[in-house]
Amino acid sequence: MTDNLKDNFWDRLDDITAGMLSAPSAPPRPMAHIAKRKDGMFWFITAKGTDIAQAAQGGAQAQYTLASSHGQLYAAVEGTLSLVNDPDKLDEIWSPMAGAWFEDGRHDDKVCLVGFKPLKAEVWETDGTAKTLFEMARANLTEDTPDLGKHGHLTF
Amino acid sequence: MTDNLKDNFWDRLDDITAGMLSAPSAPPRPMAHIAKRKDGMFWFITAKGTDIAQAAQGGAQAQYTLASSHGQLYAAVEGTLSLVNDPDKLDEIWSPMAGAWFEDGRHDDKVCLVGFKPLKAEVWETDGTAKTLFEMARANLTEDTPDLGKHGHLTF
Repeated sequence: MTDNLKDNFWDRLDDITAGMLSAPSAPPRPMAHIAKRKDGMFWFITAKGTDIAQAAQGGAQAQYTLASSHGQLYAAVEGTLSLVNDPDKLDEIWSPMAGAWFEDGRHDDKVCLVGFKPLKAEVWETDGTAKTLFEMARANLTEDTPDLGKHGHLTF
Repeated sequence: MTDNLKDNFWDRLDDITAGMLSAPSAPPRPMAHIAKRKDGMFWFITAKGTDIAQAAQGGAQAQYTLASSHGQLYAAVEGTLSLVNDPDKLDEIWSPMAGAWFEDGRHDDKVCLVGFKPLKAEVWETDGTAKTLFEMARANLTEDTPDLGKHGHLTF
């Protein structure tokens, strides 16, 4: 089940625009991700000078929280930030983001590429209903693990 | 603008099923809310014995994180949990939840009503796109506050 949970985790990330990213020196704020399983990374674009860019420069530990009923995925992900100066990677990331993003912003001198390497995550895959969430909480109290959606811990 | 931000905050909560609730003794997990502005409260239903029920019994400080592109609302809310033994309030909360919830669960002896009184929140109202999130981050670095969606701090 864990392999399947991990597959679904990466798949469902593609349908979710953004989560809340925080680091010890940077309170939670919404960030849009491009999650690339082949890189083992979440990629973010932010502006130079933001506290997240500074945290990334220092290699901070960070938490990324997903809470999307529509995307049927809730997750608390822990990992490490880094500031990545790699124009080719930025081009690669820019492309899938460009639909939602501004076409002419690629060479904005404020643009800054941040990598987030996930180390571990607690993940809930749901059908998006409140009922499932209650049942998952209740199931954790018992020895049953009925098939109520999928909940587990991942390492990367 | 702040009044408007607060109005929109409460309004948009109605369209969002769940966020991630955490307390010092209870790691983040998805919880479905019913947010009642007239009560100044978020209401949650959980099962007796969960770590959230225990945190509520102790009146713990808690964080509730919303990250809904579909609901166009991102927020980090800080507040206080309590365990509420009030069958009338449970009836009132049950009713709007019943559509998504199980009709016959109201008298499940594990059902437990948790209140979360918000004290302050940082809120982002967006159009759901990645572009807006980048522009909001960038705007925070300058003295401009262009109308890019709405971002602010609320107290309750």
